[in-house]
Amino acid sequence: MLLGLEGSTAVSVSIAAERLEVSQHHLAKVVQALAHAGVVETVRGRGGGVRLVPDADEFTVGSIVRALEPMTLVECFDSERSRCGLQPACRLAPMLDRAVEAFLASLDAHTLGELWSRPRRLRVLLG
Amino acid sequence: MLLGLEGSTAVSVSIAAERLEVSQHHLAKVVQALAHAGVVETVRGRGGGVRLVPDADEFTVGSIVRALEPMTLVECFDSERSRCGLQPACRLAPMLDRAVEAFLASLDAHTLGELWSRPRRLRVLLG
Repeated sequence: MLLGLEGSTAVSVSIAAERLEVSQHHLAKVVQALAHAGVVETVRGRGGGVRLVPDADEFTVGSIVRALEPMTLVECFDSERSRCGLQPACRLAPMLDRAVEAFLASLDAHTLGELWSRPRRLRVLLG
Repeated sequence: MLLGLEGSTAVSVSIAAERLEVSQHHLAKVVQALAHAGVVETVRGRGGGVRLVPDADEFTVGSIVRALEPMTLVECFDSERSRCGLQPACRLAPMLDRAVEAFLASLDAHTLGELWSRPRRLRVLLG
């Protein structure tokens, strides 16, 4: 949301951390994940920092959640870690799997652009 | 699923823990939560333990997930804990809220009875 207000201007991680009242360390990790998802890019040198890619507002919220959050809701979603003896006959896991898909499909109906489409109050809050 | 196979017979927590290969301590907490949700009841004395209530197979999976899991996906869902400065203008939180509802609605389409409606392989696995 903060970057959405800034348009094509890069914001340094330290200034963004201050405005969002979170630690720089945490924010650096979030920026890295968002860069990996292709929604932000980092700009080096003076006036550098992080900014949205030009078409960022067209990304769906679902695509970002998929990129940032491992959706292994239960251990057995990760076949390598699973130690549950019920797995070969379990009918709950596929239900949960479809429920996660419903969760993400709901977020796929929204774009990032919607998050900063009413910027006035956001600007006030982000000082 | 284990109790679904047992019908109206109570199973002791220690035997259930052994068959499910989980700790008794963990299982006791799950049983307590399921009892609180009204889907199991405990039977005292010899041959006692825990069993499903008579109409357990009609409960929806969604109702049990609601009863067992706090669905506070992000800190600001819990207004008392929230410290996020963006909250008054945030358009993400209501999107996530609707996505959680879609997740639960998907699970509301299934009953617990479906989990043990094909008991043969479950019986083998649960020894």
